[in-house]
Parts: sequence; structure tokens; C-alpha cells
Amino acid sequence: MPEPVFQKTQVHNLGAHYEAVRALSLSLTANLSDADATAQSMPDASPAKWHLAHVTWFFETFVLRDHVPGYRSFDDRFAFLFNSYYEAEGPRHDRPRRGLLTRPSLDDVLAYRGHVDAAMYNALPLLNDGGRSLVTLGLHHEQQHQELLLTDILHLFAQNPLQPGLWPRGQRDLIAGPGPLIWHEGPSGLIEIGHKGDDFAFDCEGPRHKVHLTPYALADRPVSNGEWINFMESGGYRDPAHWLSDGWAWVQAEGVEAPLYWQPDGAGGWTRFTLSGREPVNPAEPVTHISLYEADAFASWADARLPTEAEWEAMAASRDSLTGHFLDRAGPCRPMVAGHEVGKDRRPHQMFGDVWEWTGSAYRPYPGFRAAEGAVGEYNGKFMSGQFVLRGGSCATPRGHARASYRNFFYPHQRWQFTGLRLAKDMTA
Amino acid sequence: MPEPVFQKTQVHNLGAHYEAVRALSLSLTANLSDADATAQSMPDASPAKWHLAHVTWFFETFVLRDHVPGYRSFDDRFAFLFNSYYEAEGPRHDRPRRGLLTRPSLDDVLAYRGHVDAAMYNALPLLNDGGRSLVTLGLHHEQQHQELLLTDILHLFAQNPLQPGLWPRGQRDLIAGPGPLIWHEGPSGLIEIGHKGDDFAFDCEGPRHKVHLTPYALADRPVSNGEWINFMESGGYRDPAHWLSDGWAWVQAEGVEAPLYWQPDGAGGWTRFTLSGREPVNPAEPVTHISLYEADAFASWADARLPTEAEWEAMAASRDSLTGHFLDRAGPCRPMVAGHEVGKDRRPHQMFGDVWEWTGSAYRPYPGFRAAEGAVGEYNGKFMSGQFVLRGGSCATPRGHARASYRNFFYPHQRWQFTGLRLAKDMTA
Amino acid sequence: MPEPVFQKTQVHNLGAHYEAVRALSLSLTANLSDADATAQSMPDASPAKWHLAHVTWFFETFVLRDHVPGYRSFDDRFAFLFNSYYEAEGPRHDRPRRGLLTRPSLDDVLAYRGHVDAAMYNALPLLNDGGRSLVTLGLHHEQQHQELLLTDILHLFAQNPLQPGLWPRGQRDLIAGPGPLIWHEGPSGLIEIGHKGDDFAFDCEGPRHKVHLTPYALADRPVSNGEWINFMESGGYRDPAHWLSDGWAWVQAEGVEAPLYWQPDGAGGWTRFTLSGREPVNPAEPVTHISLYEADAFASWADARLPTEAEWEAMAASRDSLTGHFLDRAGPCRPMVAGHEVGKDRRPHQMFGDVWEWTGSAYRPYPGFRAAEGAVGEYNGKFMSGQFVLRGGSCATPRGHARASYRNFFYPHQRWQFTGLRLAKDMTA
Amino acid sequence: MPEPVFQKTQVHNLGAHYEAVRALSLSLTANLSDADATAQSMPDASPAKWHLAHVTWFFETFVLRDHVPGYRSFDDRFAFLFNSYYEAEGPRHDRPRRGLLTRPSLDDVLAYRGHVDAAMYNALPLLNDGGRSLVTLGLHHEQQHQELLLTDILHLFAQNPLQPGLWPRGQRDLIAGPGPLIWHEGPSGLIEIGHKGDDFAFDCEGPRHKVHLTPYALADRPVSNGEWINFMESGGYRDPAHWLSDGWAWVQAEGVEAPLYWQPDGAGGWTRFTLSGREPVNPAEPVTHISLYEADAFASWADARLPTEAEWEAMAASRDSLTGHFLDRAGPCRPMVAGHEVGKDRRPHQMFGDVWEWTGSAYRPYPGFRAAEGAVGEYNGKFMSGQFVLRGGSCATPRGHARASYRNFFYPHQRWQFTGLRLAKDMTA
Repeated sequence: MPEPVFQKTQVHNLGAHYEAVRALSLSLTANLSDADATAQSMPDASPAKWHLAHVTWFFETFVLRDHVPGYRSFDDRFAFLFNSYYEAEGPRHDRPRRGLLTRPSLDDVLAYRGHVDAAMYNALPLLNDGGRSLVTLGLHHEQQHQELLLTDILHLFAQNPLQPGLWPRGQRDLIAGPGPLIWHEGPSGLIEIGHKGDDFAFDCEGPRHKVHLTPYALADRPVSNGEWINFMESGGYRDPAHWLSDGWAWVQAEGVEAPLYWQPDGAGGWTRFTLSGREPVNPAEPVTHISLYEADAFASWADARLPTEAEWEAMAASRDSLTGHFLDRAGPCRPMVAGHEVGKDRRPHQMFGDVWEWTGSAYRPYPGFRAAEGAVGEYNGKFMSGQFVLRGGSCATPRGHARASYRNFFYPHQRWQFTGLRLAKDMTA
Repeated sequence: MPEPVFQKTQVHNLGAHYEAVRALSLSLTANLSDADATAQSMPDASPAKWHLAHVTWFFETFVLRDHVPGYRSFDDRFAFLFNSYYEAEGPRHDRPRRGLLTRPSLDDVLAYRGHVDAAMYNALPLLNDGGRSLVTLGLHHEQQHQELLLTDILHLFAQNPLQPGLWPRGQRDLIAGPGPLIWHEGPSGLIEIGHKGDDFAFDCEGPRHKVHLTPYALADRPVSNGEWINFMESGGYRDPAHWLSDGWAWVQAEGVEAPLYWQPDGAGGWTRFTLSGREPVNPAEPVTHISLYEADAFASWADARLPTEAEWEAMAASRDSLTGHFLDRAGPCRPMVAGHEVGKDRRPHQMFGDVWEWTGSAYRPYPGFRAAEGAVGEYNGKFMSGQFVLRGGSCATPRGHARASYRNFFYPHQRWQFTGLRLAKDMTA
Repeated sequence: MPEPVFQKTQVHNLGAHYEAVRALSLSLTANLSDADATAQSMPDASPAKWHLAHVTWFFETFVLRDHVPGYRSFDDRFAFLFNSYYEAEGPRHDRPRRGLLTRPSLDDVLAYRGHVDAAMYNALPLLNDGGRSLVTLGLHHEQQHQELLLTDILHLFAQNPLQPGLWPRGQRDLIAGPGPLIWHEGPSGLIEIGHKGDDFAFDCEGPRHKVHLTPYALADRPVSNGEWINFMESGGYRDPAHWLSDGWAWVQAEGVEAPLYWQPDGAGGWTRFTLSGREPVNPAEPVTHISLYEADAFASWADARLPTEAEWEAMAASRDSLTGHFLDRAGPCRPMVAGHEVGKDRRPHQMFGDVWEWTGSAYRPYPGFRAAEGAVGEYNGKFMSGQFVLRGGSCATPRGHARASYRNFFYPHQRWQFTGLRLAKDMTA
Repeated sequence: MPEPVFQKTQVHNLGAHYEAVRALSLSLTANLSDADATAQSMPDASPAKWHLAHVTWFFETFVLRDHVPGYRSFDDRFAFLFNSYYEAEGPRHDRPRRGLLTRPSLDDVLAYRGHVDAAMYNALPLLNDGGRSLVTLGLHHEQQHQELLLTDILHLFAQNPLQPGLWPRGQRDLIAGPGPLIWHEGPSGLIEIGHKGDDFAFDCEGPRHKVHLTPYALADRPVSNGEWINFMESGGYRDPAHWLSDGWAWVQAEGVEAPLYWQPDGAGGWTRFTLSGREPVNPAEPVTHISLYEADAFASWADARLPTEAEWEAMAASRDSLTGHFLDRAGPCRPMVAGHEVGKDRRPHQMFGDVWEWTGSAYRPYPGFRAAEGAVGEYNGKFMSGQFVLRGGSCATPRGHARASYRNFFYPHQRWQFTGLRLAKDMTA
């Protein structure tokens, strides 16, 4: 998951933006107990309390400490506890041991947030452009952690035999299942990708540059649970012919035979664990919680492939990244049925929201990329090995956070995010 | 740590005993937050909340379920969550994942305790002897978990960079340091050890049997921190000549160079972490939080050895196991200075309380030992490989729980209990 | 390291080619004892005996079994022992346990080679084009294993405290050290890369396709040992600012502080272990046995970057891949001093031979890539995750094996091959 | 496996003893190739070549270096390679990496043996008593390594899919299967155990001392393969009720369901791998290659227990340790059918030879035990944690090496030695 580096920033309504983002974090955690907010279910995940404090430390450090004379830190020891991975900011608590921090309590962290918010509201009118840019950066940073917070809680609750839900189950989605895949040819030849314009983007989204694409087509929608069940039933998880070598080793070592959180229902069907507890798998919804290895194997089985990130972006560039099924408020969170945008005449649909789409592109720098100076320069560039790019955002991504040029990235075995796939294929000339 | 199996039981004041033991558990955890009570700092440790629930499940299962017609369980799912290791009671939650059980909450567990306590108070007057014996067993079982609960919280808090204390620091112990060791010859020749009489004891404490002891002497008191510092400063942790082979491998692999919880104070001295936070090491106190490997190496360095459990018991048999520095109530908990019983004319002193004393005896069955039938038979016998016996109880052992025949046991590398040592030597004939 | 898939093949002199390649394998192993040829020093490496047998199994299986009616296998059990990773060819001996195969002996394996060679010489005149193509493929395959065999023996001998050499030390290279780096701008804009023409190439080298390159320059030569020592002495291995996050974790976990096989000489300098034993590091030679992580960190420290594979290939396309310092025969094997080609008016020089050059490109399929059908289709495509591309060949690569389009690949932490780097930088427009 | 410390020594025929022991080592390895003698199949095992060299290093170091003025070592680097675990003798090659020592070759090691033997034959007539005692010690030491060498080769060959045999299969044992177990009561009350007299014994066999035994009986013979199959077929490996807790964890983690080297024969029966290759399990032979955990579980399932080492020694004291099925020469090596000594009127029989018998006694020092001074003092005492005692010797133990007081020891999970069991039970008073 990228940490943000600002390039340009929104200069209007910064206070309102700050208030809205900070409030969403609190509402997402309103149903958590102190213990819920403290536990860490695996090294890849962090406690909810830690997320709440870390994003606050970010404002305290890079805005208040560096741009507000006389600011007094809430607690000098918090820098050690709540720095994530910024080597330039000094030593820090071991990531796999975040779940042992029963103190400070959730209430202490909320008080920390209050202290920093008060100082930020005082400071906002007085900040120079550099400071305002860092605030914008901090808000996009906090949005990233909102999504991580939800996926980390989902993972934690999934480990509990009581299978608790964070929110009540929402109304079920009654739209009928998707029809057969339809292929749409995308722009090819010499095109441009990468962020352009003055709006905020992370450093890794640029520089904008030319790429040459050979003719290709993308599917009109993500792969559905029903299609995934076909893959499973045809032995997809047991036939090495479809798998990357590393993926096959992972399947064997971990005993993987279905997406994360799926369990047999005892009657030949499947259930999945969600933020609203365990429920039947809906064949019409996009499949999610799959690894790159699984996505790649499915594509091979389907005689297709994953799109490259350039293909995806070329296709997505003409679409409105603010629409789609994103996170707007605390409450039931799930991908909507594949095809729910059909009829709106914007094809391929569901490119934004619902599920992050694995691409076949390794996460590497664009031509001319240079990381920013200082600690904020550690946000993206240093993660550019071993990971793959995902595009488009998910139902757990705050609306307005994703865009066509947005590059999310995870290791190919990771699948606790809302990850899915869209098929691509080569066009015969 | 042994789980108990009853043989004989106290038949008087069972209700008062029940009330006192159950109340102590609550008072020990009164300062814990929901998060404190949920976290698990290592697979060997359990969350405080889990201890509170597990001992309650013990009464609910072996007394209420099995001896009280019509009892309705508080929550049928708790058996899966709170069974520790009783294979005969069915599958259970993985031990290393106990810290992920943020639900049920601490309040839920307290309600569970209330439900079971109410049922127990109703049932106590009506139980037959078998049922009453199981109650007594359950109370000794709960006392064991009281000690574990404290040592597990100590371990958890020690991982927190904020170094929180459970209780305020008590008044420091002003008694001057101990004098030189004095050796006392113990009973030798053909003697008897093992539990006798009708009072409660665990199954592994019997049968009482004869052993032949060659002449030996025990030190009048445990080894002190000051003596341990001498060992450290003379290179004790760096010279393989003193160490068991497994111990030397452990020292090298773990980088051990001092007792658990010790850190340099930056001025050439040492601090230790306690249930009241970090404090200077008091040279007069018994050393604690050492492994069998360390105890054995120290004894070798001191040209002595560890006592066998038979030697220890033969020496302790004439002493009153109710006196000594034990746990009486919630509050500061630490070994008292070595020698604090001097002058009371009961030598060797500090055999009961202060620190568990590693013996050189592997934990194996006594001649004629047979485990009880059924689930309760799993308590002790199945742990009889790879562990060493400790004797005497500690400052965290509830008073009345230990006795001369009591056999505690841990693996030779474990040291998060209040473990120390007393030296022994052979008497030249 | 890629396994080969043929596309086109050499149709002339196939018998002579076969004879030459097979003979080189034998001469490379002539100095090995049965034990030398059997041991396996790590899971990534294979025993020399296994290499000799595996490449023979390849001919026996894909040529003799599939194209020569009536062929009788030498030993039916060898398919299980000497299949490398072809899932379609059935189960096989665990890779990390290859070193336990003391039987068949080296003599048995040589007899196996003789049996297959005899059958091959009989079969060659009769093979159809498909069969001949598989022979060519098998020869390129064997050349790959010749390089692996040497690097695996180097790794094995490096573990031996006696530090044995495979060959006597060759005459030292007396050419003076290289001068300062000189930058050469490469072809940019819309270019083509990938294999073209009828000569043999592996499937992953195509299809040939267009890529768009922004202006860049490459250094005239690989980075030298002397420059690497500067990096080390300026704290390069201890400053996280230069490192990829995964690389920094690797440096910390493995305690890396120099290239593989380097040791301090006790007088402030360095030695390196080679196929001729331990010797002083020559500052003029190209650095080798470094990981992608180290290469990337060096480039960052030098305010440069690694070339992409497209940049490298665009620059190399006009050069003769048959020249350069390659493996021609059994005997001392080492990179030649950086700059040894200077004066030959072919700049940048040393692109072919000496050391494999890490690129910044992840090993992924080219547009339109499709793996071949059947077992041979497993050779390249299934390894396309998590690895980086290297270009140009090394002093241990048989001459004629590498070419401008050749894509070698390894994981970013691996460094037992002859791996080095050449710097690149962006040209400001 | 104990390393020896001498106490008294044989003073007659030392030269003949030396010649016989040294010759047996060579004959045991006569069928091994250089590669066979170099490979190491697990960290617990050592290469045959290493055994041959290590026992030679022992004579070279403790006899020739320390007692023969002017002795010139064969190769000064061998001390680093062939020291096993004597910390006092300085650093040494990592045990798990012994299999990478392809140099020195087997021929080099044989030359080393020749060099040392020549010096020893010259020295023997001139040695003082101390030197002669060390020779005796070295011979007993070499005998221990003869057994380890065979069990290590057995383990290595068992990993090879070709399933090679070291020796041709011997004539099958035609004696009919054993009858039902017969129980024999042993000496009880106050008895003495431990070595006495002037013959050689290891330090851990003494001091001789009194122990008190409650009445018990031992079975007349070891448990047979047929009885073990009954245990397996009754679900013995799947029922935790019979197992020590550590044993049950081991069974689960390792997926153990039969003795080591056993495999189903595909027709409902079992085969076992031996030094003569794979063969059907003979129900009449003593079971072997079982762990202490398995032995203990079997005993529990059979409503019996393991004998203590004192019980075993009390029963064995009156028997002749030179008789029994021991190793006399190179050639087929296997336990003989249970009951083969029946009729010879020495009951219980098969106490010496055939299989080492696990006892229920942890390997700990006897009262008054003190390790010897210097490097030889590391032989036994430092291994006295975590291991269990085995008694009696096996078919792979050189005749004359074992005796009634002999204490062998291994960790409870280890089973690559010829380990079996004999049942014991308490006599009701």
C-alpha cells in the first residue's frame, strides 16, 4: 500500500477536507472495543488503534513539529511507537509487536487525536504552501490507512471462532448475476500514462510518459464469484499448469484451495467472512481476497491474461473516478454484483471501486522518477521490488482517493485487501 | 506448571474457600484494561481474560455440567475457546492465537464468572463427595492460574516501550544484604518423600515412597542478585565450560547475557522490570527470572550443584509451608531480600515463597504413579518429559498453595516465572 | 536462470555442435571427485553430477523417448531423479535433497552420458525438423547448466575451510585500472526490442515489439571492485537511505557487509574466493557476486540508477555478442579488468561477457508472449514473478550462448552467479 | 550417544585391541564410495568420512600430541574440521555443514588414519599409564562411532529413491515368532547400581550408589514388530490419550504413523528399510527405530510402563554382557527375532544386543558425579538435560562395548538408532 508523497495540492477547503477525513476515521472505529482496537492478527496487519495514532503522528511530525513554532508534542514517546517505517525519523517499535501495545489505551489515542486536531485547526490558517501541501498529503495518507484499518479488522475478526461482525449485514444486493464477459478493445499504439495536472497525486504516479501498447482488449467487468467457483470445480487449484512457479509453491505450502475467508457451507456451497460476519457467497459479486498468484492462474485457466497497468490506465482515463462503489461512510462494505453499472452506458464498467484489480505489472519506477528528499521520500520508491500493481480502488477505498493514475501495490501472495481481477487478452492483428 | 488432580479434599469451609479464591482472581485483574486482559505476548503465555475464563470453564465443565442436573451453560461456544489442553474434552482454539480473541470482552468474561459463581453457590450445599473434591481441585487449579496470570502480565508489560506497571511500587525493602552462604546438612540415607495425609495434593506428588540419599548440604538461602552479578562480571555467560550443552546453544542462539527483564542502567549497573515498572536491581534480593540452564551454569561456576528434588523435600519437610513470602493480595509482588528470615531460627530459610527453586531433577513419575481416569488425568502425567522440577513457591504463589511435596515444572529454557536457585553440594564421606 | 524453449534452430553442423557442447561439460568436471560432484551446498544450487545427468535426461526424454522409436532408457528410475521442475513430466526428487544422491555415482552418470550420446549420434541423421530443434534446444539448455555447474561448485568450495580451487590460478591481469566512468547516450524514442531472425532464441526473448524510451545514458563499463570499496567505506551497507525496503531487510537479516565470497584480509584490504581459491580483490576488475539489492543501493549512492532491460538491449544491439570475455574452455574463470576492451573503439564496452548486469526490469512477459505447449512450455513463463532481468553474459557463460536479446533472471537477493552492474542515468531533455 | 571418559583401563593386549578396533572401522566402510562417505543426511548425523577422521583426530590429539614428544600432525587444519564438540579444543566446523567437506577425500582420510596408526604403533610400547588409559578411552570412543557410522549410513541410504543396500541381505531368520510376554520380577528394596571394578567404564556410569526400588517386573523380551502392528492397527498413533504431551505434538507436527523407515507395502502390510535395502517387516523381530515418545505411548496402550534404568540394571547385573546379538564384523545387521535366546535359560533374555531399550529415566548425573578435568570432561556431563537413558546395546554395537552399567542417551524424538523397548510393570504389594 503506498504511502503518499505530495506533488501539488488542493488549496481550497482544506479545513473542511481535514474535518471530513478525520471524522470518517473515528466513525469507522466507533464499534471497536479497546481490545478490538489493540490486537494484531498478523505481521502484515496493524491494530486499529495504531492506525488512528500513526496518521495523527504524521500530522504532528511533518506539519506541527516542522511548520508550527512552539508546538508541544502530546507525548514524546509516541514517535517511537507510531512511526511506521521512516528510517530517517529514527528507530521505532517492531512492526510484528504492535499488538502488544495495550497502553496507550484507545481512549489515550483518541485524546491524542483531539490534541493534534486542536493544534491543526489553529495552524491551518497560518500555514504556508509547503505546510498546506503536507496537510493534503497527510489526508490522503489517512485515507489509505482507513482502508487498511478495515481490512485489518476484517482479518482479525476472521480469526475469532465467534465470527463477530463490525456492522450489521446490509440489505442484500438483488440485481441479477452478470451475463457473459464482453471484450472491449482499448487505446493502443503510442499513448501517455501517469499523472498530469495540478491535483494531488503520489510521486510514484509520475512522471507522465509515453508507452507503446500493442492491440488488446479488457473484459467489461471483474471476474465474479460464480466464475471463480467454476475455476475451483474444474480443479484450478490442483493443476500446476496454470500457475506461476512461485504461486504453485505458495498453494502447496499454504494448502490454498479457495479465496481467503471462504469456507465450505457443508452443503456443497461456500460461505465467506465479511465485516458483517459470515454469509453465503453470492455468485454475482466480483471475487475478492485473492492473491496475484490466484488471479494469474485464473487468467491462464480462462485462456486470457491480466492487463498491464498501462492498458488499464489507458482504458480508465476517460472514465470518472469519483463514481463507482467506494467507501462513503461507516457501514456494510462489500463489492457490488458484477454488472451493477450495466445500462449506464459506460463500458467497461466497475473499473473504479468494488475491488482492486491485479495487473500483470511489477511495481517499478516510471522513467524519470525521483523520490522526494527527506523522510517523505521513503513513501513509495523504496517499495519498488517484488510487488505488483493494482488499480481502481475498492468498496473499502474512501471515495475521491483513487484515480486513473493511482498505483496501489502488494506482494503477489497477499490477499487480505479487497483484491480481484479483470481479464485482458491480446487482439490478433 | 502443573494442572491439578485431586486425591483428597478439604471438606470444611468449602464455600468460604471458593469465595476467597475467586475474589483474589478479580482483585489481581482490577487494574487491567480490556486490551491488557486480551493481549498475549508469547505462545507460552495466555491473556489475563483467558485465565479468568478458563478457570471458570473448569468449574462449569467438571462440576456444574457433570454434577448439577439441569445446569445451562453460559455460552456453548466457550468450551472451544477456554479449554486449555484437555484432549478428552474435544477440539479447542489454538494456544498461540488466544490473543486474537478480542471477543468475548473482559466484561463478558466477568459476566461469565458471575453466572458460574451463582450456580456454584447454589450447588455447593448439594454436592456429593466427588463433586466437592472437584471443587477443591478447581480452586487449587485457579490458584495456579493466578500465578500464571501475574507472570504473563509481567511479560506482556515488559514488551511495552512505555514500561507500564500494574501496581505502584511498594516500599523498598531496607534489610541489609545477606552474609556469606552457610551450608546445612540435610537428612540422608533411606528416607521417604511424596505427599502423605488427607489434605489436597496433586496426583504427581505421590505415591509416597522411599529414596536413598547420599550425604549432602543445602545453602541457607537462595542465590542473590549480587552474587549473580559476580557471575556475570566473571564472564559466566561467555564461558562454555560451565554450561550444559543445550544451555550453551540456547545462550548463543538467544544472545542471553543476564536474567530476563534485566537491562544495563547506562551507568555500569542493572535495572529489572517488575510488576511495578522498571527499577534498579537490588543486590540483596534473590535472583529471579532465570532458566534452569542459567541456574545450572551458576552452580557449576560456584563449584556446587543444584539440589535434587528429594534432597530439597527432605530438608523442607520439617518446615511450615504456610509461612514465607507468598501472595496474599493484589499489590506489589517481588522476592524479599535474601536472608529476610534470618534470626527466626529456621534454617535453611526462604525455602517457601520468594522464588521457585530449580532442582536438578527431571520431572518424571514417582514409583507407582498412575494418572487419574478421564480428562482430569491429563493434568500432570502427560507433561513428564523434558521438564525440570521446581520447589517451594514464589512471591506470586497464593499462600497455602505450595507445600513440601509440591512439584512445579517447566522446560529448562523457560524463565518468565519467578524462578531462582539454592545451591547444594555433596558431603565428603 | 531460464530454461530454454526453442523457436528456430541451427540446421547445419548439429553433430559438431552436439559434440562440442557435450565435451565442454566433461572437461569442466574433469577435476571433480565423486564427492565434489555429489554435494549440494544450498537449495539454490545443484550437485555437478546432477547437472551432468539432468541435461542428459533432457535429451533422453524430449529427443530419444519422443522421437526415436525403440529407444531403451538407460535406467527408468533416472526420470524421477533428474527431472528438474517439469510438472508435466511427473513427480521428482526434492530439489533441496539432491545432495543426498550418493548413488548413482559419478561414474554411473558418465556411463549414462555415454549411453545417451551413442544413441544421439545414431539418431541425429534421422531426426525430422522438430527433433533437430529439440536437440538445439537441449544444447542451449546444457550451456546454461555449464554456467550453473561452475557457480555451484564455486559456492560449494567456498564453504570448505580448506578453500580448495578447481583450477590453478591463471596469470594475473596486468592491465591498469579503469579511468573515470564515461557516459554514452543510447537510442531513444520508439525502438524495437526482442529477438528477431531465424537463429535460436528462448521463447521469453520475444515477441519482438516496440517500446518507447526517454533519453538516457549508460556507463562505458561495469562498476569496478575499487568503486565498490569506496561504497563500502562510505558506509553504503549501513545507511538505509540507499536501499530498497526489501533490500534493507535482507542486509539486516543476513548481516551483509560486502559482496559474496569477500573477506577482510586482516590488513585493511579484502580477499575474494574464486574457482582458483582465495586471492586479493583486484580493484580494477568488475565487481561481481552482488545481489540486485546491492546493485540498486550502489546506483542510488552513486546518484545514478540501473538501466532498464530495453535500454540495455537498445545499446547492445549494434555490438557483436560473440566477442567479449566468455567461457571457452575449462580453466581459470574470472571477470577481466574493467576497461580491458578500451581502445577497441566499441563503446560502451564489456557489455557481453565478464559479468551479468542487473537491470531494473522485473522479469515479465513481453506483449503477445505465449508459452509453448507441453512440458517445454514450463521453461520460462512460469518463472515470471519476483525476479529481475540480467543481461550480457559472464566469464562463466559459454561463448555463443548469450546475445543482445538474451534475458537471464534471478531473485533480487541471489548473488552466487557472476553478477555485476553497469550504471545508467536519465538525460535531461 | 555418550563420548567416553576413562576411569580404569585394560593394560594387557592394548596393541591387539587397537588393531582390532581400527580394522573394524575400515571394514565397515569398505563398500562406501567417496560420495557415500561424504554426504550428511541430517544435522544429527555425520558423514562416514568424518567419523573415520574424527576418531583418528582423537588419538592424534589426546595421545600423540599430548604424550608423544616430537609428533608432527598430519595436517594442522584437521583439528578445525574434525573436532566434534570439545569447546576446550577451540573453534570447529559447524556440525550441520559437515556434509560439504568434499575435501579432504576419503583417500586422504585413509592416509590420515595410516599416518596416525603408524605413529600409534610406535608409541604404544612407550606410553605411561595415563597415555595407555587414553588409548583405551579412544578405542571405546571409536566403537561408539562405529555404531553411529552404521546408523548414519542407514539414514543416508534411506533418503535415496534407489534404496541402495550397504551389504547383501543375510539369510533370513527362520525361528518362529515369540510367544506371549512373560513377566519376571526383579531385585527390589535397597540395591546398588553403577559401575564397579577396574575395567573401563565411562564417567557417567558411576559413582556406584544405592537406590531403593519398589517391587516391579520386566518382560522376558523386547516388544516385537507384530505387537507394534497391533498398536498401529488399534489406532495407537491417533489417540492422544496414550501420549506424552510433547510426544503428541511431535506426532502431529511430523505426521508420524509408523516406526522410522517403515512404508506400506501396498498390500496391507509393511516394509522397512535396512542396511541391506528394503524388505518386508518380520513380525517376530523386535521393533526398532522408534522414539521414546512412541515407546512410552506403546507402553501406556499396553497398560504397562517403561522400566527405570535402575530396574533395568538390577535385572541385567547377573547376565553376561558379552553374549547377545552384537556387531562382530561387517555384514548384514539387524535385530534377531524376539525370543531367539529362549531355551538358553537366561531370562529375561535379549537384554544385551539386538535393540537399545528406552528406559523411563532422564539422563542425569548419579549422586557424587563429577566430570573429569579438561577437554575429556566434556564427554558426558554436559549432555545431561533433555535426554533419556537407553540400555543394553544393539545389533550395531560392537561386541564388548556394552555392559550392565552402560548408559546410552538420546533425545526423546530421535529414532535413527536401533532403538526398541521392553515393558515393565509395578508389582502390587
